[in-house]
Amino acid sequence: MAQYSLNFKGLPFETIWVEFPDIATVSKKIGTLPTSEKHSSSHYTLPAIHDPSTGTTIADSVLIAEYLDATYPDTPKLFPPGTLALQLAFIDAFMPRLRALFQFVVLPTNNILNPPSAAYFRSTREKAFGTTLEQLAPTGTAGEEQWAKVKEGLGVVNGWLEKGKDDGPFVLGQEPAFVDFFLASYIQWLKVIWDEDSVQWKDISSWHGGRWVALIKALEKYETAV
Amino acid sequence: MAQYSLNFKGLPFETIWVEFPDIATVSKKIGTLPTSEKHSSSHYTLPAIHDPSTGTTIADSVLIAEYLDATYPDTPKLFPPGTLALQLAFIDAFMPRLRALFQFVVLPTNNILNPPSAAYFRSTREKAFGTTLEQLAPTGTAGEEQWAKVKEGLGVVNGWLEKGKDDGPFVLGQEPAFVDFFLASYIQWLKVIWDEDSVQWKDISSWHGGRWVALIKALEKYETAV
Repeated sequence: MAQYSLNFKGLPFETIWVEFPDIATVSKKIGTLPTSEKHSSSHYTLPAIHDPSTGTTIADSVLIAEYLDATYPDTPKLFPPGTLALQLAFIDAFMPRLRALFQFVVLPTNNILNPPSAAYFRSTREKAFGTTLEQLAPTGTAGEEQWAKVKEGLGVVNGWLEKGKDDGPFVLGQEPAFVDFFLASYIQWLKVIWDEDSVQWKDISSWHGGRWVALIKALEKYETAV
Repeated sequence: MAQYSLNFKGLPFETIWVEFPDIATVSKKIGTLPTSEKHSSSHYTLPAIHDPSTGTTIADSVLIAEYLDATYPDTPKLFPPGTLALQLAFIDAFMPRLRALFQFVVLPTNNILNPPSAAYFRSTREKAFGTTLEQLAPTGTAGEEQWAKVKEGLGVVNGWLEKGKDDGPFVLGQEPAFVDFFLASYIQWLKVIWDEDSVQWKDISSWHGGRWVALIKALEKYETAV
């Protein structure tokens, strides 16, 4: 999401990839704040940016986007005037609609990580879920029912977008905004964890008139990590 | 919400109040569609409008607002261009944040209804919840914990609005839109079911810098039912 935001604004950046076990150490070192508190301990997440022109270091995709809008007022706005509260609500509404998805994505996400991240991700998630990653996704009829719920949840989001389609191809109309990049990041992630020939990706590509593939295609030029 | 929408647009209307047991009959008679299907049976809700200038009859606050925007393009927009999808998402995000509230409002809502509505409301809700309305709201420590969750949920909504406050007093900025009337309708309802001297209303009035009272005050001129 931060890469989309930076590219959309035409701000140059350099990406440093961090393995999961190093996130807390690196975050403390560069001076970002924890993005949440879990079980009374600070929880650090990426992305984070360090802006050498102001000396600011900041974590959390939304806060990064707000910072970039405020600090670089002459670049395209991720939150055009009057849309910040609504875009935050959109994100809040989106997450519960995707709840059924999570059990399906944990294992394939683990499978694409580098070994140090994969080991860390597996052990923390297996502890949290109380089961192996392999046993997390339901199979058979239960699996089909849950997968139908994924489609149904994305269908609700599609319903909002479909109603607004007369305004233009993006959520706010002719130009993309933060919520478009937010949605595209999720779809990109699904495309990466499942290969293009997988049943899952073929399903998602076919749902809702091909909206999800069209979205990442439309935002392709803002994807590049440099 | 429909009254707010009509007043905001300056469209004249006449209100006909319908008691709960008559909603389905009246809805079928005027020709609105059911707003949902529950247990394989059609569920009718109010508000509904009948527009004699087009012959259209329509139920559901959101659909009414969309209809009014489309049919009367020279009146102020409830969904300004580029905000329909976001406003729908806002409503979707708002409802789960208010979940803790519902157990507190059922009994006082019942108490302000006319006798035929009160009897209908009580019997349908007691059947649905499997308990008397008097026993629905938690008391003592459990009650305090649940009430704190009401404040927390409204606090999340306040967080979105607070972040957008530089744009103006309303969600989209200087002018109210559908989501403002949507929020105000909920707050109005709370003010009506609890009298102004109640602990509950005093609490709500004091929360989040007095935002909720300020909101209904700011929209007061659009309230009148004629």
